[in-house]
Amino acid sequence: MVNTSSQPQTWSQRFESALHPAIARFNASIGFDIELIEYDLTGSQAHANMLAHTGILSVEEGEKLIEGLEQIRQEYRRGEFNPGVEAEDVHFAVERRLTELVGDIGKKLHTARSRNDQVGTDTRLYLRDQITHIRQQLRDFQTVMLTLAEQNIETLIPGYTHLQRAQPLSLAHHLLAYVEMTQRDWERLGDVYKRVNISPLGCGALAGTTFPIDRHYSAQLLNFDKPYANSLDGVSDRDFAIEFLCAASLIMVHLSRLAEEVILWASEEFSFVTLKDSCSTGSSIMPQKKNPDVPELVRGKTGRVFGHLQALLVLMKGLPLAYNKDLQEDKEALFDSVKTVRACLEAMTILMQEGLEFRTTRLNEAVAEDFSNATDVADYLAAKGVPFREAYNLVGKVVKTSLSAGKLLKDLTLDEWQALHPAFAADIYEAIAPRQVVSARNSYGGTGFEQIKQALAAAKQRLNES
Amino acid sequence: MVNTSSQPQTWSQRFESALHPAIARFNASIGFDIELIEYDLTGSQAHANMLAHTGILSVEEGEKLIEGLEQIRQEYRRGEFNPGVEAEDVHFAVERRLTELVGDIGKKLHTARSRNDQVGTDTRLYLRDQITHIRQQLRDFQTVMLTLAEQNIETLIPGYTHLQRAQPLSLAHHLLAYVEMTQRDWERLGDVYKRVNISPLGCGALAGTTFPIDRHYSAQLLNFDKPYANSLDGVSDRDFAIEFLCAASLIMVHLSRLAEEVILWASEEFSFVTLKDSCSTGSSIMPQKKNPDVPELVRGKTGRVFGHLQALLVLMKGLPLAYNKDLQEDKEALFDSVKTVRACLEAMTILMQEGLEFRTTRLNEAVAEDFSNATDVADYLAAKGVPFREAYNLVGKVVKTSLSAGKLLKDLTLDEWQALHPAFAADIYEAIAPRQVVSARNSYGGTGFEQIKQALAAAKQRLNES
Amino acid sequence: MVNTSSQPQTWSQRFESALHPAIARFNASIGFDIELIEYDLTGSQAHANMLAHTGILSVEEGEKLIEGLEQIRQEYRRGEFNPGVEAEDVHFAVERRLTELVGDIGKKLHTARSRNDQVGTDTRLYLRDQITHIRQQLRDFQTVMLTLAEQNIETLIPGYTHLQRAQPLSLAHHLLAYVEMTQRDWERLGDVYKRVNISPLGCGALAGTTFPIDRHYSAQLLNFDKPYANSLDGVSDRDFAIEFLCAASLIMVHLSRLAEEVILWASEEFSFVTLKDSCSTGSSIMPQKKNPDVPELVRGKTGRVFGHLQALLVLMKGLPLAYNKDLQEDKEALFDSVKTVRACLEAMTILMQEGLEFRTTRLNEAVAEDFSNATDVADYLAAKGVPFREAYNLVGKVVKTSLSAGKLLKDLTLDEWQALHPAFAADIYEAIAPRQVVSARNSYGGTGFEQIKQALAAAKQRLNES
Amino acid sequence: MVNTSSQPQTWSQRFESALHPAIARFNASIGFDIELIEYDLTGSQAHANMLAHTGILSVEEGEKLIEGLEQIRQEYRRGEFNPGVEAEDVHFAVERRLTELVGDIGKKLHTARSRNDQVGTDTRLYLRDQITHIRQQLRDFQTVMLTLAEQNIETLIPGYTHLQRAQPLSLAHHLLAYVEMTQRDWERLGDVYKRVNISPLGCGALAGTTFPIDRHYSAQLLNFDKPYANSLDGVSDRDFAIEFLCAASLIMVHLSRLAEEVILWASEEFSFVTLKDSCSTGSSIMPQKKNPDVPELVRGKTGRVFGHLQALLVLMKGLPLAYNKDLQEDKEALFDSVKTVRACLEAMTILMQEGLEFRTTRLNEAVAEDFSNATDVADYLAAKGVPFREAYNLVGKVVKTSLSAGKLLKDLTLDEWQALHPAFAADIYEAIAPRQVVSARNSYGGTGFEQIKQALAAAKQRLNES
Repeated sequence: MVNTSSQPQTWSQRFESALHPAIARFNASIGFDIELIEYDLTGSQAHANMLAHTGILSVEEGEKLIEGLEQIRQEYRRGEFNPGVEAEDVHFAVERRLTELVGDIGKKLHTARSRNDQVGTDTRLYLRDQITHIRQQLRDFQTVMLTLAEQNIETLIPGYTHLQRAQPLSLAHHLLAYVEMTQRDWERLGDVYKRVNISPLGCGALAGTTFPIDRHYSAQLLNFDKPYANSLDGVSDRDFAIEFLCAASLIMVHLSRLAEEVILWASEEFSFVTLKDSCSTGSSIMPQKKNPDVPELVRGKTGRVFGHLQALLVLMKGLPLAYNKDLQEDKEALFDSVKTVRACLEAMTILMQEGLEFRTTRLNEAVAEDFSNATDVADYLAAKGVPFREAYNLVGKVVKTSLSAGKLLKDLTLDEWQALHPAFAADIYEAIAPRQVVSARNSYGGTGFEQIKQALAAAKQRLNES
Repeated sequence: MVNTSSQPQTWSQRFESALHPAIARFNASIGFDIELIEYDLTGSQAHANMLAHTGILSVEEGEKLIEGLEQIRQEYRRGEFNPGVEAEDVHFAVERRLTELVGDIGKKLHTARSRNDQVGTDTRLYLRDQITHIRQQLRDFQTVMLTLAEQNIETLIPGYTHLQRAQPLSLAHHLLAYVEMTQRDWERLGDVYKRVNISPLGCGALAGTTFPIDRHYSAQLLNFDKPYANSLDGVSDRDFAIEFLCAASLIMVHLSRLAEEVILWASEEFSFVTLKDSCSTGSSIMPQKKNPDVPELVRGKTGRVFGHLQALLVLMKGLPLAYNKDLQEDKEALFDSVKTVRACLEAMTILMQEGLEFRTTRLNEAVAEDFSNATDVADYLAAKGVPFREAYNLVGKVVKTSLSAGKLLKDLTLDEWQALHPAFAADIYEAIAPRQVVSARNSYGGTGFEQIKQALAAAKQRLNES
Repeated sequence: MVNTSSQPQTWSQRFESALHPAIARFNASIGFDIELIEYDLTGSQAHANMLAHTGILSVEEGEKLIEGLEQIRQEYRRGEFNPGVEAEDVHFAVERRLTELVGDIGKKLHTARSRNDQVGTDTRLYLRDQITHIRQQLRDFQTVMLTLAEQNIETLIPGYTHLQRAQPLSLAHHLLAYVEMTQRDWERLGDVYKRVNISPLGCGALAGTTFPIDRHYSAQLLNFDKPYANSLDGVSDRDFAIEFLCAASLIMVHLSRLAEEVILWASEEFSFVTLKDSCSTGSSIMPQKKNPDVPELVRGKTGRVFGHLQALLVLMKGLPLAYNKDLQEDKEALFDSVKTVRACLEAMTILMQEGLEFRTTRLNEAVAEDFSNATDVADYLAAKGVPFREAYNLVGKVVKTSLSAGKLLKDLTLDEWQALHPAFAADIYEAIAPRQVVSARNSYGGTGFEQIKQALAAAKQRLNES
Repeated sequence: MVNTSSQPQTWSQRFESALHPAIARFNASIGFDIELIEYDLTGSQAHANMLAHTGILSVEEGEKLIEGLEQIRQEYRRGEFNPGVEAEDVHFAVERRLTELVGDIGKKLHTARSRNDQVGTDTRLYLRDQITHIRQQLRDFQTVMLTLAEQNIETLIPGYTHLQRAQPLSLAHHLLAYVEMTQRDWERLGDVYKRVNISPLGCGALAGTTFPIDRHYSAQLLNFDKPYANSLDGVSDRDFAIEFLCAASLIMVHLSRLAEEVILWASEEFSFVTLKDSCSTGSSIMPQKKNPDVPELVRGKTGRVFGHLQALLVLMKGLPLAYNKDLQEDKEALFDSVKTVRACLEAMTILMQEGLEFRTTRLNEAVAEDFSNATDVADYLAAKGVPFREAYNLVGKVVKTSLSAGKLLKDLTLDEWQALHPAFAADIYEAIAPRQVVSARNSYGGTGFEQIKQALAAAKQRLNES
């Protein structure tokens, strides 16, 4: 293990006395920013490369720095580089180790750079990777949902508004709604990425630098789209983190809605799905229990990400330019949100893929036992020229009398239908059979089977293209 | 005034008793959704047009509906259409008035439509307009800031990190940082717009409709980019509102930062700006006071928009599909955020344009009286081959001894400089003069005057292009 | 109507030019702080009384001011006092009208007072009233819940954890849980009240006053517990509002939980309650629908109050002492939260009192058709000396085999029981009958009928005492 | 190290297949709830004690369990008890180790208890301790502030409203404002404590238990005030955590305000304090910098606690009774908030105690160079019978003309004063001298020196009493 503990703070020369130990602990970020170490090394390598490229350092110096940084990377991966709290932050820890490894040249690495632009670079490199990963996880989730949808085009499920049965649906249609939501998430993250992928490297502490650096060159080395155009903005901007947290919050909204539905579906009362043992847990005292812990936790973790979003907004409110130490607080909120979203996406994907089984018999029966075909009676009349609002009112009455009589609409005789309105004919029975009710909603985006097949095809093509 | 008060609830036929009056008040949204009325009329006209276009209604019926809706618009604009709480919501209020105006045909308007897709359409039409307006306001703000920047390229201002003087800046550079922030706001709203401008019309209550509607046609009439591809998603999606509120929150973050700076600048201690009477207020008991109420209020209103964002996230968390009445709560948060952001943008634009004056003499003096040129001494040495970290440490010591001696760096004699390090020469004085310190930061995005001129040119071109 | 529009701003003497009209609109609070007018009049009357009491004004002057203020109160109540935006705020509007009514003496009212302590006084008087009202509403809600509980001691309902059936309950026990929650709300508001009911009057702008005022006297006149002990704190403290919003948020948490349950219970799948027509609404296109709008809206409004809490926390973060204009933003969040909580409490109380009916037959049947008596089998064995964890594991196996066999526990033969474990005897059937399962949980706070009767008695006594 | 990794899940008997490894990781709380282990052991010991006391277990069994639990405590303290992710949670980890240590009796510990009431008990024991600790930290902070105040009764400092100089203050008065704020925090935590200190132990999973337990006895053993009166409420209530987080948020509000002020005071422009080396840090590239990292971090961490508060509110919104797995998410937010508040209180106390020095000369000069004595001129006139509003307007004019003339009020000649109003006499100069201006605000709670001495005495007595 590399010992860095006896090193003084890098900025200590103007200071006469040491930092109070409790204050040193309070200030130190090494406990969490070690997460950024590989990005810090990569960023520093690009910086060294640029310094040599522009002649600020010699080519040899540049190479030595790059090699030394690579050596630290290997030490870290082997578990041999473990800076403690005395290192203050990951950036100082790396610089010190580098100087141990390559000698005084190590002290030249920080030429034309500040921690302010350095940490901003690291964070963006980190987040860029994470966004790419999360977008892939969204694709994986969509793939599972599409497969499930394809298997359940003809499975019917009650459709709800106000958690009251409204109109029967194809289960595939219901599942595809989540494919659409996560498609927006995927696209939104693409837009966020554009504003993450900008390089602050070379903004210096706040004002740029007096050295003839080439920010476009280092940006290019790190695959950034471009450098920040204003150095004050470059070191003090955290929009990209907040915008990501908003996109993350929306992913959590979508997952929490699906989670809520699975919890409902798994209840005794709905019994729409059976949870598999591999994805549910028991009770410490109730031997019969099989609990939907996964969706409950996902739902519960939603507020966590919302909270982090709020934390970062509060952080930025009213901060004068440029860098302020407050900004150090952006990291834990960001890291924990990334971990939470990734864990929830993984867990929900597993749950949908192998953790539950739809009880299709129960589902198909369910849609035949309620009044969710009532709209179709109104539509039937409207299609025969009765003004919609009149038709609607008429059907309202039928429902009321049927309910009192303990009947469903399918149980009414043709005479009863015609007593209500002469426009009714024998084809009313066909019109209100659940399968037909679903099939008939053949407008674009509707639950009609034809529409679903087209929607499935479009969604699959989208997956293949990206 | 049109009386609609004696009308029963449109959905009352299945119901035997009337709504409890307190519950009716609790449920009614007419108190705030009247804000949507013109969008509701426009949406309904497109729907009627589509119904006629597809033959669901006759061309004459379509025309009558469209004319009747136009008549309501005129009544509303003349202040003659004022539905009360008994109307429940703006949609029912319009439908009832329409039926009074055009007779039973009015009852056909709601064919192949539900309030769920209708209100979603209205809200998107509203928000689309507001986004366009806010983007224009961002442009206006940028124009003012650019003008101010152009006038102050050579005005120097202390640059801060940790609210400690760090390095001197061109005031133009400082102002341009806000142009960059609001440029991201402008671009972000453009991305949000893409996800706002999708038509839910024709999604029905949740499942589409049995009528042969043409959703692409109505979407086109209303200038939507496309219709929602899944009806469940179309009626239950509020991502677009949340995403807007996130963008709005970021605008408020940026305005609150500028507000904080103006408040600081206007303080006795900073004295960087003088507030003009037209944009400041007095005290009820302290006759000498001239208070920066505008930036204080802007800063204070920041939390308001954050709160609305949180409210909508909470609203959506764990809601099962599809529409739930909870969603009615999206409107007031959205409307108030729009109003707040628009008012704050307007007020800050006026403040920057005509509400304050930079005290340039005081500013130019300020940068000459501190140690904010210390980095340049280190850079001076580093440019002569001294490793940066060594140079940095050396300068730390100089600052310490100068502070004790009550001197600034410019006050050191050349002998004193050379005693510190033989690399110092007579050009050190030029190197640390504030104007030179600013000028020398000529890296891309830096505060150097050349850079600023290029940044100004680029920003102006951007304004002209959009 | 009283015209105040031509009056200049009260603080305008040091100012040379008028306020920009858009800025005047932006700054004005009269649009919402008119809500405080009666509290402002009351506070001013107490202030005038104190000024006379201490001899700062003459007794006659004091009386004239008090009478003039009372006259404004009457004008306001008659709808004759309607200050416009030009009045800036309610306090100036009142002072101007007062001077119209009583002449130059009106200008003496503001002696030894500032708007900062004045508005703080008004807000506390307002909130104090509202807390008292909300506490009464909590009592009303509890009364309804207690009545319902008393009627349903012997009604059984499935008890859930993880929304999985866990153990059967007395419905009364379930309802009493909400009485406990709202009891905490009631007590918490009592604690909040202590910190609301402190008088800032006389704190002046920030530093107290040079006049020999008697703050204890004016505090007593207004029934405050005491005056603030530090003037800076008195004018800049908004803890009381935030603490109230936290208590309000918790009320919303509790109501939202009950709301969620009612929504579930009213679903086709649960069918535990029937919604009455007076408290439910229909659909614009689905004639069969009866929607639980009230609990949905309550659930939806929860985030609104959370958002206001967040807004006020953000408002206060990092504000330097003492008063800042930001604080003006406390009012709308507070007012809207008060209105929301009051409306939700009223609506939920009506809903529980007359808006739904428990389907007791369905409920009593439900508890007999599941494995929620499994814990009682484990307890049965544990009571006979089998280690709990062993008993638990054994019952886990029985549940598994019974599920496969399509049997419930009550369907097992005594032989089957004894094959599992010799400790089973004929009394096992009695032990697992739902009524006995409920009855047996006779530990303090448990669902056993005896416990419930005691809990009911205790809750009723609590109501009678307060 | 104790190996627990090969143990199956305690609830696994009803389950046929093992948990998916990713799901096991997702569900496990051992990673953070290990923080509760000592509270879990204490709670279990009390439970075992109660089981023996009531005869549910034998006295010997009870003793063995208590000893075994104590042994685990010692193992944990020696670093020998380190359950991994396979342990699921700390409760199962303890139960398993206990059974290893004491044999099958260990399996009896969970008799008449559930994880739901167990974890609730642990959390309350934890929070109770933390509240006590935080209250002590508030007392420590107050002690430091009181000492500082005592030393600075006669030090003057400009008082601000709107960050504009308003009226001069005694520095002691300013510091005492924070003693008042934290006094409310101290009292508020006392109120929160009442609602934390209630025992859920014995509530079982949700419904109580069939065993003849004595909940009052176990509550008493653990020093709880009383047991929860309703078992459903007992296992699903998280009010206590939210209420604590609200109190914690208010502490952060107060600390962030002080932090903001210290940041301002430490700026070049204010120069009211000098930061000591032990509590400030440098820059990586600007050798002259001495940054107020501590108050910046405190200000930055404010949003973190607000975010956790929001997270828990979101968590609870709309959760049906009783326990849901979502509730597991309460812990990390709570733990991190406790750590944050404790660290910030410690850091700010150190900062105020030894990290900064008030520059009293600069402060005393500052108050003599502005118009913050203008109110006293108005008061001077008002005391001589001129209506306050008239006096105020007059002084507004003087300020305006003085400003143009580059004069302060003290620079006006007596002739000039009398030209303004004949009531002015020679004593005007004394009346507007800063020390007199401060001294004259001798109303209760004001900044007058007499008031401050009384306030200091009262605050010290409060400290001594508690």
